[in-house]
Amino acid sequence: MFVPLTPLRFLHRAADVFGHHTAIVSGDRTFTYAEFAGRAQRLASALEGLGVQPGDRVAFISFNNNALMEGYYGVIQARAIVMPLNVRLSQQEMTGILNHAGAKVVFFENDFAPLVEALKPDCGSVNRWISIEDEYDALLAAAESKRADIFSYDESSIAELFYTSGSTGTPKGVMLSHRTLYLHALDIITGFRELESMVDLHTIPLFHANGWGRPQMSTMLGVKQVMVRRFEPGHVFRLIAEHKATHMCLVPTMANALLNHTELGQHETTSLKQIMIGGAAASPELVQRLEKAFGCMVCCGYGMTETAPVLTTSSPKRGVTPASDADRARRHAMAGWPVPGVEVRVVDSNLEDVPRDMESIGEVIARGDHIMDGYYREPEQTAAVMSGAWIHTGDMAVWDNEGFVHIVDRKKEIIISGGENISSLEVERAIFAHEAVLECAVVAAPDEKWGEVPAAIVVRKPGAELSEEALLAFLGERLGRFKLPRVIRFSEDALPKTGTGKIRKNILRESFWAGRAKRVQG
Amino acid sequence: MFVPLTPLRFLHRAADVFGHHTAIVSGDRTFTYAEFAGRAQRLASALEGLGVQPGDRVAFISFNNNALMEGYYGVIQARAIVMPLNVRLSQQEMTGILNHAGAKVVFFENDFAPLVEALKPDCGSVNRWISIEDEYDALLAAAESKRADIFSYDESSIAELFYTSGSTGTPKGVMLSHRTLYLHALDIITGFRELESMVDLHTIPLFHANGWGRPQMSTMLGVKQVMVRRFEPGHVFRLIAEHKATHMCLVPTMANALLNHTELGQHETTSLKQIMIGGAAASPELVQRLEKAFGCMVCCGYGMTETAPVLTTSSPKRGVTPASDADRARRHAMAGWPVPGVEVRVVDSNLEDVPRDMESIGEVIARGDHIMDGYYREPEQTAAVMSGAWIHTGDMAVWDNEGFVHIVDRKKEIIISGGENISSLEVERAIFAHEAVLECAVVAAPDEKWGEVPAAIVVRKPGAELSEEALLAFLGERLGRFKLPRVIRFSEDALPKTGTGKIRKNILRESFWAGRAKRVQG
Repeated sequence: MFVPLTPLRFLHRAADVFGHHTAIVSGDRTFTYAEFAGRAQRLASALEGLGVQPGDRVAFISFNNNALMEGYYGVIQARAIVMPLNVRLSQQEMTGILNHAGAKVVFFENDFAPLVEALKPDCGSVNRWISIEDEYDALLAAAESKRADIFSYDESSIAELFYTSGSTGTPKGVMLSHRTLYLHALDIITGFRELESMVDLHTIPLFHANGWGRPQMSTMLGVKQVMVRRFEPGHVFRLIAEHKATHMCLVPTMANALLNHTELGQHETTSLKQIMIGGAAASPELVQRLEKAFGCMVCCGYGMTETAPVLTTSSPKRGVTPASDADRARRHAMAGWPVPGVEVRVVDSNLEDVPRDMESIGEVIARGDHIMDGYYREPEQTAAVMSGAWIHTGDMAVWDNEGFVHIVDRKKEIIISGGENISSLEVERAIFAHEAVLECAVVAAPDEKWGEVPAAIVVRKPGAELSEEALLAFLGERLGRFKLPRVIRFSEDALPKTGTGKIRKNILRESFWAGRAKRVQG
Repeated sequence: MFVPLTPLRFLHRAADVFGHHTAIVSGDRTFTYAEFAGRAQRLASALEGLGVQPGDRVAFISFNNNALMEGYYGVIQARAIVMPLNVRLSQQEMTGILNHAGAKVVFFENDFAPLVEALKPDCGSVNRWISIEDEYDALLAAAESKRADIFSYDESSIAELFYTSGSTGTPKGVMLSHRTLYLHALDIITGFRELESMVDLHTIPLFHANGWGRPQMSTMLGVKQVMVRRFEPGHVFRLIAEHKATHMCLVPTMANALLNHTELGQHETTSLKQIMIGGAAASPELVQRLEKAFGCMVCCGYGMTETAPVLTTSSPKRGVTPASDADRARRHAMAGWPVPGVEVRVVDSNLEDVPRDMESIGEVIARGDHIMDGYYREPEQTAAVMSGAWIHTGDMAVWDNEGFVHIVDRKKEIIISGGENISSLEVERAIFAHEAVLECAVVAAPDEKWGEVPAAIVVRKPGAELSEEALLAFLGERLGRFKLPRVIRFSEDALPKTGTGKIRKNILRESFWAGRAKRVQG
C-alpha cells in the first residue's frame, strides 16, 4: 500500500508510541513527545493563519532549541519549506540568502534582534519576523493542534532548504524532499548501537548538515533529545552528566576542544556509548584519544549537505576484523562504508572505479535516496555537480575491497607538486600527530621548480615548544620526502574557520599566492 | 532524488559492499554475495529467454535452498512476480492456486516430481516446469549476468504473490510491491541486535510470511544466510554449531521441538544472540525456557502475510524498564510494539481505540508501508478486510500505554460463553504452563445453557501422567471459573497442524459441533 514518505510520520509515531516519554530538553524546558507533537501541530496551524502557502520558505535564525526542532515538523506540516540559517553568516550573506530564497517568515532568537533590524530594510520578501522568546509561545497558544492527514502530502515535495556553508563561493540552497528525509532517517539506523537506551545530545548546530541529519531518526525512535544551544565544553560535560547522554556528534575541532578542556575528567560521562565524528576528517589519534577519554565507541560519518547528509559511516562492518587496535582506529577514522540507500564510488575522470587498493586516488561520487533534488533556483549549478544520477562530492579518496572510503583531500585542495598528487589532509594528519600541535593546515604554495609545494600553518598548544627543525624531523619519519612542507609558518592565533569549524584554507592559500596567477581550481 | 525502491537494490548493495563475503549456505554449497547476485541476474536473463513477460507469475515448489533465494531477486529483475508455494498443500490446493494465479513457470525440487506430474494436466497456464536439481544450474550457466537498471523499475509494481496458508477458507494471493518489500526490510532493522556479526539461520520455510520477511533485510545487510532445508531439531542444532548462527526465527511448535529434543545441550549453540518467535502466540514460559536453554535474548514478532509480514516486535523499548524478570518475560512474549513504517491500533467495532488498560479487548488494525496492495484478482475479498487504508487483522488483543499489543485470540476463535468473551489462547497458555503438557488447543464447544464453553484437547509429554481432575485443579488456581474448560480430551496423537505449525483449530472445533448449527464466524 502506498503511504507517502514524510517526516511527519515520525512525529505521529513518536506521539503514538512514545507520547509520555521525554522528547526534547531545551534549556530549562522539557517536552514529552505528545507535547512536542502538539506544539509542532500548533505551529503548522499558526503558519497557515499567517497566510503561509504551500512551498513558501520559513527561515530560522536560531541556535539549537525546541522551537527549531518544532520548526522541522510544523513548517512542513503547513506544506512550507523549513530553512534554518547559519547564525554565523554575515549580514550581507544572510541578506543574499533570504532574498535568493524569497523567505516569507523568519523566526529569530533575541540574540539576533539587532541583526534582524539591520536585515529588514533589504529583505522585502519577508512579511513576518517573529521573536522566539517574545512571540513564539503566544503564537502557538492561539493556534489549533491538528494532526496532518499524511495521505494528502506529496512525498516528492521539498521539505527543507539548506544553504551550504561551503568554505568558498556563494551559498547555494540544497533542496531536500519529504521522501529523502524519511529514507535518510531509516538508512542511518545501521550506524548506531544501543538504540533502545539512546539519549541524543545535539551538539552540532541544527542548521548544519551533520546537525540535522540525526533529529529525524531520533524522533522516529522516540529518543530523548537534549539541545546544546551553543557548544561550550564545560556546558557539554554538564549536560552529558545531567541527562546521561549516550550519543553525540562532534566535528574534530569540537572534539579537540573537549579533550583539551580543563574540566575533562571532572564530570560523570560514563553514560556515553557512541561518539560520531563528522564535518571534517578525523585522525586515528583523535579516535583513540576520544575512546580513552570517554570509554566509548568512536567512529566517523561522512557526507555533505547535498546528501542529506550521511553517505558512509565507519561503524563496524560484518566480516571485517581489524588486525590490531591501531588498525581498528585507522578504520574508525575513515569516512567508512555506505549506509543503505546510497551507492558510493571512487572514480577517475572517466567515471571508472579506481582500483580498490587504498592507494589510487579518485573522486567520491554517490547516488541514491539521500541525494538532493538540486540547488534552489540554480539549474546550472545543479547540473555542474551531477553526472546523470551521480553527484560529485568534490572529495578525493582512496578505497578498499570492503567498500571503506578514506578521504584524502578536497578536490581543490590536492597539492600538485612536480606531477605528484599530495594530499594536504595526509600531511596535516602527520603534523597533528605531534603532541605540541593544537591546530594545523596545509595548503599549496607556489614554487618555481615544482609548480606547487606543501606549506604548513601550525598553531602550537599553549606553553608547548616546537621548532621548524623539530617538526620536520618528526615528519621525516612519517611522510615521503616529496610530501614534506617546504614552508612552515607558526601562528599565534587560531586558524580562520567557517561556522562548522572547518578551517578556511582558501584564505590561508591566498596568502601564499598574492600577486601570482592562481591554479585553476575545482 | 527519486530512486525507485526495489529489493533489487539490496542485491546490488550486497554485491558492491559485501561481494567477497559468504551470502548463502545451502546444503553443501556456499555462495558469496558476488556469486549470489550473478546467479540471480542469470536467472533474470534466463526467464526473459523463456519468454517470461513483465507481470507474469513464476512459482516455486521448494524447501529452503539457494534457488528459492535467487528467485526472490532473479524473478523480479525479470519484472515478473515471484510466487513460492507452501509445499505442504494438497495437489488440489496447488492446482487451485496455480490456476488462480495463472502461473507461467514453475521451479520444483525433485521431491515434488510426482506431484508435478499430477499437477501438469490441470495447470494449463504453466508452460515450463523446471527441476531445480536437474535443469536449473544449466539454465543459469547458459544465461547472461546483467545488472538491472534500477531507474527502469516501477516501485509500485507487484514483486511477490503469496497465497495465505490460512487455517480455514480458500487461499488468497497477497500482492506485495517492490516498494513494500524495500521499506519492510528497512523498518524491521530496529527489532534486531548485533547486526554487524549476524549469521541468520533460515529455519522457517521461505514460502511462509515469517520466513520471507527476513532475507530481504539480511541481504541488504550482507548477512551470512544459512538455509535450513527442512526443520529437524538435530539438523538445526548442527547448523547452529557449524556456522555459529546468531539469529533465528521459530514458531512455538518448532521451539518446543528444540526444547524437548534429546540432543538439546549436546551441541555448541553459544553463538546464538537472538531468537525471534513468530507465527503463533508465545507464552512467558516458552520465552524463559528458550532463554535458559540458549542463553540469548528471546522476543516475539507479530504480523501476517498481508502485512509483509512484520507489524510489531517485543524487542526492548526505550523507556520501558521491566519491574521483574517475570515482567520482562511477559513483555517479551507479547506481540509487542510497532516497528517504524506502520501504525497499529486496537479498536472496537466503531474503529475507536479501546482503552490502553491491558483488559479491554479489541481488534488489531494496521496501516502503513507494509500493507499489501490487495488480494490478487479478489477485489471483494480485499475490500472485506480493509477500512479505508486500515487493514483488519482478525486478531483480538489488549494493549497498554507503551503501545505493547498482546494478542488474546483470533477473532473467530474467541469463545463467547454466557455473554463473556473467553480467549482460547489464554486458556491454552494456562494449560501449557503445566509441566506434563506437550501440546494443547482450546476451542468453543456447544452448550445448551451457555451457548459455547471452552473445550481443551491436550497431548501429554511421553511418559508424563496427568488426569482431568489434576489439570482442572491446576487451572483453577490460574483462571477465572468461567474460563475453565468444560470438556477435556486427552489425545495420544499430535494435534493436526498447518504447514507453519499452526494447530488447525477449525478441525478440532468441528469435531464438537458435528450435526449442530455452527456459530457464524469471522
